[in-house]
Amino acid sequence: MTYTFSDNFKELAPSAIREILKSASAPDIIAFSAGNPNAASFPLREMRQICGDIFEQSGAKALQYGATEGYTPLRLAVTERQRARFGVGRDFDDTLITSGGQQALELACRVLCNPGDTMLSEDPSFIGALNAFRGAGVRLAGVPLERDGMNLEALEKAMTENPRVRLLYTIPTFHNPTGITTSFAKRQGIYELAKKHGVLILEDNPYGELRFSGEDIPPIKALDEDGIVIYCSSFSKLLSAGMRVGFAIAPRPIVAKMTVCKQTEDVHSNLFFQILCHRFMTEHDFDGHIASIKALYGGKAALMTDAFDTYMPPSVSRTRPQGGLFLWCSLPESIDLPTFCAEALRRKVAVVPGTAFSVEQDSCRHDFRVTYATPTDEQLVQGMRILSEVIADM
Amino acid sequence: MTYTFSDNFKELAPSAIREILKSASAPDIIAFSAGNPNAASFPLREMRQICGDIFEQSGAKALQYGATEGYTPLRLAVTERQRARFGVGRDFDDTLITSGGQQALELACRVLCNPGDTMLSEDPSFIGALNAFRGAGVRLAGVPLERDGMNLEALEKAMTENPRVRLLYTIPTFHNPTGITTSFAKRQGIYELAKKHGVLILEDNPYGELRFSGEDIPPIKALDEDGIVIYCSSFSKLLSAGMRVGFAIAPRPIVAKMTVCKQTEDVHSNLFFQILCHRFMTEHDFDGHIASIKALYGGKAALMTDAFDTYMPPSVSRTRPQGGLFLWCSLPESIDLPTFCAEALRRKVAVVPGTAFSVEQDSCRHDFRVTYATPTDEQLVQGMRILSEVIADM
Repeated sequence: MTYTFSDNFKELAPSAIREILKSASAPDIIAFSAGNPNAASFPLREMRQICGDIFEQSGAKALQYGATEGYTPLRLAVTERQRARFGVGRDFDDTLITSGGQQALELACRVLCNPGDTMLSEDPSFIGALNAFRGAGVRLAGVPLERDGMNLEALEKAMTENPRVRLLYTIPTFHNPTGITTSFAKRQGIYELAKKHGVLILEDNPYGELRFSGEDIPPIKALDEDGIVIYCSSFSKLLSAGMRVGFAIAPRPIVAKMTVCKQTEDVHSNLFFQILCHRFMTEHDFDGHIASIKALYGGKAALMTDAFDTYMPPSVSRTRPQGGLFLWCSLPESIDLPTFCAEALRRKVAVVPGTAFSVEQDSCRHDFRVTYATPTDEQLVQGMRILSEVIADM
Repeated sequence: MTYTFSDNFKELAPSAIREILKSASAPDIIAFSAGNPNAASFPLREMRQICGDIFEQSGAKALQYGATEGYTPLRLAVTERQRARFGVGRDFDDTLITSGGQQALELACRVLCNPGDTMLSEDPSFIGALNAFRGAGVRLAGVPLERDGMNLEALEKAMTENPRVRLLYTIPTFHNPTGITTSFAKRQGIYELAKKHGVLILEDNPYGELRFSGEDIPPIKALDEDGIVIYCSSFSKLLSAGMRVGFAIAPRPIVAKMTVCKQTEDVHSNLFFQILCHRFMTEHDFDGHIASIKALYGGKAALMTDAFDTYMPPSVSRTRPQGGLFLWCSLPESIDLPTFCAEALRRKVAVVPGTAFSVEQDSCRHDFRVTYATPTDEQLVQGMRILSEVIADM
């Protein structure tokens, strides 16, 4: 039997990265391709203890239906932390707990955009978000990314030249896939352009807590006096990715509409783990735990970038991430990207071709993404050496 | 600031039931309005033990990202059980784990229907599903429900007279809100009509395991030789509602597309609780546990229906549920439903007006839904007595 699918989904295929990750799951592969946090970032001992406490003190409540908005004590703790830590959230804002940061992005798009509306984003950008926007029937237009954030002239041009631009999707801090952090000046510029052109900003900040060098830069949401920024983040890189707990902080009417949409998608997020997040935040050393993750990733990033600088020829460049999980490498134009990725995989190193993150068709044709988050220290050095050999042989 | 929302969501408000449930949460209210399972149906002791085992044996894996399709051992266990227990699933089918049964319904609608397409359903029907369909921009048309299922003539008329009918949504077993079970003959008739008119069936079976009297009737999916039925169910009424674990069994191409859509919504469902479900199903006495829930609800249903028959005047009728959570009561036309519901609440008994479940505007104007699942035995009798007094005084 042949099935006819909806216009929004008939062309949408599984993310290319998923297929690469499958091929990289063999045990002898150095998986620079992964997008996972390091399992050492999950505080197993404390979480196990909290689980026991929840069963003892409120098991039946934790397993019962909950409110779509989320577990109230967690909403309050998240609101409080984001305000204290990042200056995010005003009186006109509200907080919604979501099933991972992914759902927050997807809900914002579904309630604000009609099919055919345009969303802008950095080019390249996070494939999971791009596919969510495509699934809502939205047209994507990419804005070239420079070492300090989007090119503002190109951004303004994109805002004025595309039809019905509703949202600008941005990951200003430790961007996925590039690791780039947008400068404060550019954040101000982005905010002013959005305000001027009546575009709402969808700010994704999943890695913001994970700065291992340099100084914090306020999120764009911290500038939001006008109620034009929807801010999304998650616990995936801090406590557990598999539990699927994230959040959005946005103007009250937008959160109210996202809540209606969320109710249609999954009623509410796993309540047991919402309670667990709240207890971890308030009863354990959340800051100390985050400090240990930052130390882990900072050390691994240094190992990988040192290996890069040691082995790679000068024709290959890289970004200089100060946090997050990813490094972005650019090959000389003479090297064919698919051939490079295939040969690297043959030599047991998996990387993700930049084209997997392209917004515009011709972008990122000489770039690739690697992660330092999950490989062993030995793999970080050995894998980078192998990649340099692949390049030398091409 | 004024925000403009998408066409699909600008009119969609939170479900009316949510507001009723909020007003019914005061401790002195007899909440016949609830839609929750009884917390005694959550096997706390076993689940707590399994949680400890998961942390001990595979904690880091359970907290890491998982596959969008779901945890493979759980998918296999669900497939096996549904086949053995209900005759559901053929070689052309596949199984997807979802974030509650709600997500399964919503994904099916989003990947199969364009805005403006028509979905048919029993009138009345489950408000959570109806809102999910509305959120996908779908037009709903209701088919009158009789004591043995939909009126088949009205169903065929609806299939032929509405534009672009894509899906028929049905809860044939222990229907929410009415408690009605569709007869086997009508299930065959529904299947044949769907096949004849090229309509796919979205069968919702969240209560199918909870038959406390009478004989099992095969789900419509058990008749599906043609690959036209998408079957959805969940663990919400068997292990925990708050953990949000459900599933869909449907033809492989449909499951593949639902998987792509799910990836855009939440990447995957809470992995820890997927593992927990699998371990409960395979390491504990799942059937024995379900038998205890059935005994609980069977006893409570008998108490409530006996109280109904004792106190209610003959002008008020009720359904005769053989399973599930709900009883549906019909008032004489002389009684104004909103006045009745308000007066009942004033006397501390909350019920849900039938109109909250209406598909067509003028349906269910003299009906209300009550649950026997969560009130205490004493409340079941006392609440029904109070409702009869409200009617006597009107």
